Amino acid sequence: MKGMVRHHQTDYRWEGVDVHPYKEEGTHFRNVTRQTLWKGEGNLPVEFRYFEVGAGGHSTLERHDHQHAVMVIRGGGEVLVGDTVSPIGMFDMVHIPPMTWHQFRATGEVPLGFLCVVSAERDRPQRPDDAQVAEFVQAAAEFVRR
Amino acid sequence: MKGMVRHHQTDYRWEGVDVHPYKEEGTHFRNVTRQTLWKGEGNLPVEFRYFEVGAGGHSTLERHDHQHAVMVIRGGGEVLVGDTVSPIGMFDMVHIPPMTWHQFRATGEVPLGFLCVVSAERDRPQRPDDAQVAEFVQAAAEFVRR
Repeated sequence: MKGMVRHHQTDYRWEGVDVHPYKEEGTHFRNVTRQTLWKGEGNLPVEFRYFEVGAGGHSTLERHDHQHAVMVIRGGGEVLVGDTVSPIGMFDMVHIPPMTWHQFRATGEVPLGFLCVVSAERDRPQRPDDAQVAEFVQAAAEFVRR
Repeated sequence: MKGMVRHHQTDYRWEGVDVHPYKEEGTHFRNVTRQTLWKGEGNLPVEFRYFEVGAGGHSTLERHDHQHAVMVIRGGGEVLVGDTVSPIGMFDMVHIPPMTWHQFRATGEVPLGFLCVVSAERDRPQRPDDAQVAEFVQAAAEFVRR
């Protein structure tokens, strides 16, 4: 294994790293790109990815067994983790535990860019079915006070 | 496991996170602080640490079996990885492979702050003995062209 320095260029692009669509298919997200900065192996089998959600965009609402450890490195927005929506901004850290519904949203007028560390071996995301969406809406309705 | 958002406050300090000396003892580093932002478990057993090397400071020259995956998030400086010294700046990524000598230096007039991801289970660092330092100096002498 050889050491590596991967230089940031400008505007959240890195040398030798391609910018990809967030996912190859689906309509359950909006305005998101993905860059894989590093794929680890051996005793650090994790990947470093940079996701950028354009202003007004959002990632898929999903859950999976694998965890995310995230640090915001551009702009800000909001994140849903379980049943809690939190504002997030520069250098905030977010942990998404196993099987926890989550979604990142660039709710302001700036993009939301974040580093997302995951295990190299991981399960596929699940999306909520109609019943689960209804549960969400119900929980939200019960939460609201007016 | 409950989800978590750990907000950055100002000036590279995070809510609920203490600032520690880099190491509890030793004189082989200068002007370095350490903050542990997150300790993972389960299927993502890694830690997120933030190290900050003050202007003119440096981390220990050391090696170990565990790897580092690093992203610079403040200022810049230089990093030695194996026999290569590279300038590093904002959002650059650095990978330190197993058993590779490395040292971070804040060579400019600004601090060098970086996120460092490591396995939660890891071996203790080794420092070079006099013979290894001599090898370094010899390699450097051979490398120089004038």
